[in-house]
Amino acid sequence: MSKKGILVVFSGPSGAGKGTILAEYLRRSPKAVCSVSATTRKLRPGEVDGVHYHFVTREAFEEMIRQGEVIEYTEYNGNYYGSPAGPIRRQLEEGRDVILEIEVKGAQQVRAKFPEALSIFVMPPTFEELRRRLTGRGTENEEQIRARLQTARVEVAMAPDYDYIVVNDVVSEAADRLGYIIEAARCSRKFNQEFIQDILSQT
Amino acid sequence: MSKKGILVVFSGPSGAGKGTILAEYLRRSPKAVCSVSATTRKLRPGEVDGVHYHFVTREAFEEMIRQGEVIEYTEYNGNYYGSPAGPIRRQLEEGRDVILEIEVKGAQQVRAKFPEALSIFVMPPTFEELRRRLTGRGTENEEQIRARLQTARVEVAMAPDYDYIVVNDVVSEAADRLGYIIEAARCSRKFNQEFIQDILSQT
Repeated sequence: MSKKGILVVFSGPSGAGKGTILAEYLRRSPKAVCSVSATTRKLRPGEVDGVHYHFVTREAFEEMIRQGEVIEYTEYNGNYYGSPAGPIRRQLEEGRDVILEIEVKGAQQVRAKFPEALSIFVMPPTFEELRRRLTGRGTENEEQIRARLQTARVEVAMAPDYDYIVVNDVVSEAADRLGYIIEAARCSRKFNQEFIQDILSQT
Repeated sequence: MSKKGILVVFSGPSGAGKGTILAEYLRRSPKAVCSVSATTRKLRPGEVDGVHYHFVTREAFEEMIRQGEVIEYTEYNGNYYGSPAGPIRRQLEEGRDVILEIEVKGAQQVRAKFPEALSIFVMPPTFEELRRRLTGRGTENEEQIRARLQTARVEVAMAPDYDYIVVNDVVSEAADRLGYIIEAARCSRKFNQEFIQDILSQT
C-alpha cells in the first residue's frame, strides 16, 4: 500500500456536528490532522496564529492565490479564507491523513484539483433534527435561524456530489464511520495503482 | 442509511489467503454470510449439501440459468458451478452482507449484473510470497505448481478491475480491512440515494 496520507474533504451544514465528530476522530487517530486555514481577517482574542488560522495579510493571500498555493478559497465579509497547499502537501507526503473541514464551494474546488481526494458529507439524521439543533442553541434570533436553515438547505442539496454520507446520529458511531471510510480508501484501487503495477511487474 | 445488506465479490489468486481472511471476518461479523454455490458435481465424502455446496442435477442447474436464477456461473471439468440468486436476494433484503468468494470470470458477470456490488481483490504482499505459499504446501508437483502460478498471473492481472485491493500480510489486519471496506460502503453515496432523497424532500 502507498505510504502517502489521504486527503479528506469534510463538509456538512452548520449544526450537523462536523466539529464534534472531527474532535473525536482526531483524538483516536494521531495520524490524522486537520488542515489549518489561512485568513486575512484580524485575529480575535483567544485565537492563536497557526492553531485557529494562519493569519496573513491581504497581499500575502493574493500572492498565494497567484502562485497556486491555496487549494481552495473563498471571500466572505471582505476577508479571504482558504487552505494553504504547502503544509497539506508536506503532511500527505509524511503519511498523515489531512482533513479539510470546508464548505461546499471550497469542496468543489478541491475535488476539481485533487480527484483522488475523498469527500464526505455529514448529515443530521433528519432535517427536522437539524432544525432542532439550530433552534436549540438559543443564541440566535428567529431571522438568523431562518437564514441558517436556508444555507443548510442549499448545502444539503450538494450532498449527492460527495463520495460518502456520514449520518451523525451518535457522535462516536459517526467517528467510527469516518475511520472506516478513511481506512477503506487506503485499500481503494485508486490509492494502490503503484502497488498493483509493482506486483504485476513481478509476475 | 439503507437497511439492505451489501453484496461483496471477493476474489484473489489461490494462495492469497481468501478463505482464512473470510473465516476470520465471519467469526467477527455475524451479520455477514458467505453465499453457498450450487454445483452439478457429485457430493464428496465429508461434504454436506447446503453447507459446502447446493448439490443439484444438471437439468436443475440449466433451468436455473434459463430463469436467470444464477448470478454467475462457470463450467469446469464438465460440471457447473454458480451462485444461486434466490438466497442472495433474500439475505440482502434481510440486511445481511453477502460475500461471494468467486474467481475473476464470475466476478465480471456479477459486476455486469450488479453494478452496486462491492468488489475486493486479495493480494499477497509480493508475487514472490505467493510463489512461496504455493510451493510450500508440499502437496503438488512442480508442474502443478507451475500451472497454479500461471493461473495466478492471469488472475492478478485482473486486480485493476476491482474496487478494492486487500493485501494479506497479516490475516487479522486483512480481515480488519475487509470490515472497513464493507462499513464504508454502507456510507457510500451509491448506497444512500434513498436517504439523500428523503432528507432533501424534508428541506
